[in-house]
Parts: sequence; C-alpha cells; structure tokens
Amino acid sequence: MSSTRDIDALIEMMAKLPGLGPRSARRAVLHLIRKRALLLTPLADLMQTVAATARECLNCGNVGTSDICDICASEKRANGELCVVEDVADLWAMERAGVFKGRYHVLGGTLSALDAVGPEDLRIPKLVDRVTAENIAEVILALNATIDGQTTAHYIADQLEGSVKVTSLAQGVPIGGELDYLDDGTISAALKARRDV
Amino acid sequence: MSSTRDIDALIEMMAKLPGLGPRSARRAVLHLIRKRALLLTPLADLMQTVAATARECLNCGNVGTSDICDICASEKRANGELCVVEDVADLWAMERAGVFKGRYHVLGGTLSALDAVGPEDLRIPKLVDRVTAENIAEVILALNATIDGQTTAHYIADQLEGSVKVTSLAQGVPIGGELDYLDDGTISAALKARRDV
Ligand SMILES: [Zn+2]
Ligand SMILES: [Zn+2]
Repeated sequence: MSSTRDIDALIEMMAKLPGLGPRSARRAVLHLIRKRALLLTPLADLMQTVAATARECLNCGNVGTSDICDICASEKRANGELCVVEDVADLWAMERAGVFKGRYHVLGGTLSALDAVGPEDLRIPKLVDRVTAENIAEVILALNATIDGQTTAHYIADQLEGSVKVTSLAQGVPIGGELDYLDDGTISAALKARRDV
Repeated sequence: MSSTRDIDALIEMMAKLPGLGPRSARRAVLHLIRKRALLLTPLADLMQTVAATARECLNCGNVGTSDICDICASEKRANGELCVVEDVADLWAMERAGVFKGRYHVLGGTLSALDAVGPEDLRIPKLVDRVTAENIAEVILALNATIDGQTTAHYIADQLEGSVKVTSLAQGVPIGGELDYLDDGTISAALKARRDV
C-alpha cells in the first residue's frame, strides 16, 4: 500500500523505541492518527522543539536545554557531594526521590569487557577532574547492583583512592519490597548488611 | 527545572500513548534525545507529515492518506466479500494474514449498553448501504470473541437478514480473544472455517 508508506514508516520508527514493539507501535500510531489535531501535531511540534534545544550538560552529562545544566549551574547544589550514576534516567530517579542535595556525574554506561567499554568511554577522566575542580568531599556511587555496575564502582574507587571519600548506596530490601519477589543476590546482600534494630 | 519544561512535557505526552507508561516514556525520550539527529528529528518530521495526510476512508473507515483507501479503490478487492471488523488494527491484522481478498468495513467499536454505544455510532447504517451499493454476496463478521463483540455480530446479522449471506470467523478464535493478538495462522484457519450465523 504505497500511499500509506508514511504511516508504515512511522509505525516502524515507533516500534524501535525502548518499551514499544510492533504491536504497541501500531496501537500508538492509530491512537495518534485518531487524535491528530489534539495529539499528533502537538507531539510532533514538541519533538521538533526538543530536538532543537536538548543537549547534554558539558559538565555532568545530564540532559537539559543549556550547555551547563540547572543542577551544575546552581550554587546551592555545590555542597561537596557528588553522586555518580550510570544513566540520566538514574539521575532523574534520584531527583524524584528528592533526598540528595549535591551534584551528579553521569557516566553514560558501565565498564564492560564484553562490549569493549573502557574508562575513556564513560566520562571517568572528567569525574577525576571534577573532584578537584569542584572541591568534592564525598563521591557517592549510585551504580546498579549488576556485575558491570560493581566492577565500575571498584574501578572508580581505585582511581579516586586517597583524594576523596568514596561511598556507595546501601544494598538491601527495597521499602515495601516483598522477600518472595526479590532475587537471591538482593536477599543475600540485605542479610550481610543487616543492622541492629 | 523550568528550562527542561519541554522535555518534561514530551515525556508526559509520550506516557499517555497506549502501551507506554511514565517509566518507558522517560526511557524513550532519553533514547530520542541521545539520537536526536538520527531519530528525534526524522520522527517529528514523519509525525508532521502523517498528521497532515492521514485520514479515515469515507467508505470503510480504514486509515490511509486519501478519502477513499487503497482497498476500497482497488477493483480487484470487489469480489463480493465484505469483512466487518471492530477496529483498524483488526483490519491490519487480517491484511497481515494475507488470506482475505475482499473489502472491509470498520465499525469503530462494538455496541455497548454500558458505554451507551448504539448502531449509529458504529457505521452500521453505512454497512447496510454498502451491502446493496457494492453488490455484496457475503458479509464476514470478524469481530472479537467478547460479549460486546458477539452482541454486535448478532445485531448486524439481524439487520442484514434476508438481504445477504452472513458468516463469522469460527473455530480458532479463542473465547475472549482479540484478533490483534492472534498469529496469522490462527486468523487464516478461522477465516477458512467460517460458518453461517
Ligand atoms: Zn550538569
Ligand atoms: Zn476504504
């Protein structure tokens, strides 16, 4: 159906987004076409705007609309604490929690022998620079509790040894978490890190 | 973060799409921002194009880029068979199965006392007109095997009684099953085994 080529192309492009597959992409596109004035046109306009304005912070790797993101630009966030995360999504999760008041450093992934990801691919040299340049007193590693995440944490701790205090998020049972749903590793870590009540 | 307002708005809009939630919308938007030249700009352009060109076929309700869709415009598809589906997604599922060679009629839903959906809301009058206007010999009801789907099938069979042969997809469609979830083979088998209503 040559005249529906654009619709097919749109479905195909949407299907490649993380979290969507061919079926949900078809549903989403039909939904958008049905509400094209109310939804599809505004969405396209917004994407155009974001494509033109979004950029990565040159300092920390956060996503925003200026070369230096709001968090790096805010003097209030210069409290000597620097939280290291793998991904911008993790930074956003920390911000939603609303408990961390310092600045961030987004690695952009983890070290991976398998995928040939080395320190230079991960803004680790920039992290080392920032510790001095921004008078950091504590680096908090908030990396995922995966093998690659922990390998990366150890590598960073080695790099920063002696120059700054390095801590990491505690591992354990999430609030509201049910033991029966947790993997063995989490239960094991929670048991090892048990504390007096 | 006022300067990231557009990014937040984009996430919020994406999160409303069927199949996406807040978390997958955030992931999708980060992915799009990372690949903004390769993915976000082309996607926005394509959405703009589709918003400007997509429309519902005035005859059958299919989605395409002209007032009369390719299937209705094709003389080859005028074989006297008319397949009635609830939704455009179902029409696409039938087309992917590749076994039906006639034309379609998209109802746009099912009769529903609960949601106050009556025959006029469903292109049923138009269906009755088409049976005569297009010399239809057989109406094949390919409605979902839900209570509302079957109620609608019986209502349509009553309306068309005496004027045309009415059949429905048979064994192969599981109870409570929706066409769009079925594999091509199941749809194909159900069409071949269709029976009188
Ligand atoms: Zn920043
Ligand atoms: Zn049509």
